[in-house]
Amino acid sequence: DEVGSHRDGTDDPWAAEPRRHPALKPSSKTPFNAEPPPALLADNFLTPKYERGPDLFYVRNHLPVPVIDPSEYELEVDGVGVDGLTLSLEQLKNDFPAVTVTATVMCAGNRRSEMTQVKPVRGLFWGAAAVGNATWTGARLTDVLKAAGYDVNSGPGKHVCFEGLDTDPSSTPYGASIPLETAVDPRRDVILAYEMNGQPLSRDHGAPVRVIVPGVVGARNVKWLGRITVSDTESDSHWQHSDYKGFNPSVDWDTVDFSKSPAIQELPVNSAICWPAPGHTVKVKDGHVHVKGESGLTYWQTAGSVNAGIACECFGGGQRIVRVDVTADGGATWHDMALTVEEAAPAGRCWSWCLWQGRVPVPPGATAAQLWVKATDASYNTQPETFKNIWNLRGVLSNAYHRVDVNLKRV
Amino acid sequence: DEVGSHRDGTDDPWAAEPRRHPALKPSSKTPFNAEPPPALLADNFLTPKYERGPDLFYVRNHLPVPVIDPSEYELEVDGVGVDGLTLSLEQLKNDFPAVTVTATVMCAGNRRSEMTQVKPVRGLFWGAAAVGNATWTGARLTDVLKAAGYDVNSGPGKHVCFEGLDTDPSSTPYGASIPLETAVDPRRDVILAYEMNGQPLSRDHGAPVRVIVPGVVGARNVKWLGRITVSDTESDSHWQHSDYKGFNPSVDWDTVDFSKSPAIQELPVNSAICWPAPGHTVKVKDGHVHVKGESGLTYWQTAGSVNAGIACECFGGGQRIVRVDVTADGGATWHDMALTVEEAAPAGRCWSWCLWQGRVPVPPGATAAQLWVKATDASYNTQPETFKNIWNLRGVLSNAYHRVDVNLKRV
Ligand SMILES: [Mo]
Ligand SMILES: [Mo]
Repeated sequence: DEVGSHRDGTDDPWAAEPRRHPALKPSSKTPFNAEPPPALLADNFLTPKYERGPDLFYVRNHLPVPVIDPSEYELEVDGVGVDGLTLSLEQLKNDFPAVTVTATVMCAGNRRSEMTQVKPVRGLFWGAAAVGNATWTGARLTDVLKAAGYDVNSGPGKHVCFEGLDTDPSSTPYGASIPLETAVDPRRDVILAYEMNGQPLSRDHGAPVRVIVPGVVGARNVKWLGRITVSDTESDSHWQHSDYKGFNPSVDWDTVDFSKSPAIQELPVNSAICWPAPGHTVKVKDGHVHVKGESGLTYWQTAGSVNAGIACECFGGGQRIVRVDVTADGGATWHDMALTVEEAAPAGRCWSWCLWQGRVPVPPGATAAQLWVKATDASYNTQPETFKNIWNLRGVLSNAYHRVDVNLKRV
Repeated sequence: DEVGSHRDGTDDPWAAEPRRHPALKPSSKTPFNAEPPPALLADNFLTPKYERGPDLFYVRNHLPVPVIDPSEYELEVDGVGVDGLTLSLEQLKNDFPAVTVTATVMCAGNRRSEMTQVKPVRGLFWGAAAVGNATWTGARLTDVLKAAGYDVNSGPGKHVCFEGLDTDPSSTPYGASIPLETAVDPRRDVILAYEMNGQPLSRDHGAPVRVIVPGVVGARNVKWLGRITVSDTESDSHWQHSDYKGFNPSVDWDTVDFSKSPAIQELPVNSAICWPAPGHTVKVKDGHVHVKGESGLTYWQTAGSVNAGIACECFGGGQRIVRVDVTADGGATWHDMALTVEEAAPAGRCWSWCLWQGRVPVPPGATAAQLWVKATDASYNTQPETFKNIWNLRGVLSNAYHRVDVNLKRV
């Protein structure tokens, strides 16, 4: 079959990888995993494409990028209560209403490189930019399930499993599942997306079709979607059962039992300072705020400063971020940041991150400071202070306060 | 009118207060506010009535308990898009399907007495037991709104306001509101409850009718319900606008602007150790676990112990508590507790707390220890470590780790 064959006819599964934006910083090249510079993220509510190159959205691939001819693409739908159905890309586009949803996608391992400082964890060492926000357009999963004869009101307890067309050397595909309750939730437009930010999906983001599950961890937003199966049980994929789960800090590789924890679906509230970067020298200036708009880079002022960041609780039921606080004095004083939110999103359907910026006083005379950020969502859930007590052996769910050491220069 | 008159004909608004269980510990007597001993809470999934007395469910009244003759009770329904409707108690019971939901109700100020240790806050000094769990039976709010001609699918952006029949000396009633999205959410059975744990509501819990909004703070579960109004704006009640909101720790009474924070609806994940109590001497015994089942009180063992507690994330989208960890060594080791959950609740509709218990090793030779607990919900949100960085002037949302100092006695 076409999948697994490669353009250049060699046996190298990595020979047909797509071109990537040079600003993406890889944490692994085969499979390709990379994130953009954080300062660029905070500039745009929708993660952009710059110039003529590919976009800056982080890439998290588990296997080689499959080569798929869109004209030969087929999506299979099967499983419990489903009449078998096979759809071409044209059928998916033409036979179902196109739905557009704005949703942040984040890797479960985002910010792992901070957690591993406490005690080593296993995984790719992501910084704070394994996250991006985009508009996604596609067919509603529920519409496709209905077309396959499935009664979407048949009750809870089942799972919708997704298989990618990306495969390992034994031809095992990437896979994941979501609970049926999530799949059919009328407030959460789960879609089979063929466009991202108004353009056809790129190969790195799952062309021609990926699943978008607003509010759910990237790992379940399966790319290069080949099959949808309604099942009585979760996906039997390694990534559903034996990865992407949280444990208490005392569970180690000798004692871990992956069957004891639930697969990550929604993610906890999180936030990050995108600018300044660690080690950066920032200007402290008497007088008024001086903001320079280049790439969102801004300058500090009097016992005052400006910085930019992202707060991602695109998750946890689609709740809005209601407050982002920053301190430069170890929590002695906390300062509300100004938030950029998606105004159109109704309550409980805020699937996007918010961007934020603001001024923070620094201690008089200080030549250095550590900035901390924490976000609070509409349920008033907030972040844990440190990584020590949320440490887990896979380094996922890394949402303690983001702390950035900077040097201060008075001007 | 009948409301505000009192049985004994005096002008004392407190003369007609109901009888209370003697085990309830008041934080205020007029209005009556009281909580049960925590150790009794952890014994029962549903907060019980003992013997012949009233129940042990915490009471949070803002005003005198109104005297209401059930045969003369009237519920008014009005507002934007609503044909006026007045219902008697019999009509509410007979004209609408009876729906039963199990839901935890918690005060926004639960555990305030811990937060005030960091820096004084204003409010009633609740311990960790201003929370209870019950089954509630009543008519669905959406069924009543439909009967009043309201199109429950008319779109988001509105609010459903509730007025109590309890009034202050100027005849202003208690009031609160919830977003329409919450009110009509098909996964969240918001009901007008006339029964609690299979019995007619008691006067302290809102007889004859109160609102139950699963997953939402007690303050919006309006008791002695007299009026429901669909509105373009939130309730104009003091308690909606100028109370029950969170702020960052640097906001004080000179700088607070209540219009800047959202009214608390869902609450963050929380948990508490119910037994042992602070200052308690607990037995540490070599050998096997020795559990004594009296009132859930249990004994410690070898570098091992048993205790009981509650974890309340009855909130935040109805998510299940997936893990409760306890440490007796300042976080050096964390230990999973065994959870008692409501098995019948489908994912996303877990409106009840869970109870938990387990064994915790204590440091060898120690004669005292501090126990810490934290719970984690299905979005892997967990609790902040300390109160310092979540402190707020009203002392609400008090969900840092619960810490209990105990003495250890080896047996
Ligand atoms: Mo991921
Ligand atoms: Mo409350």
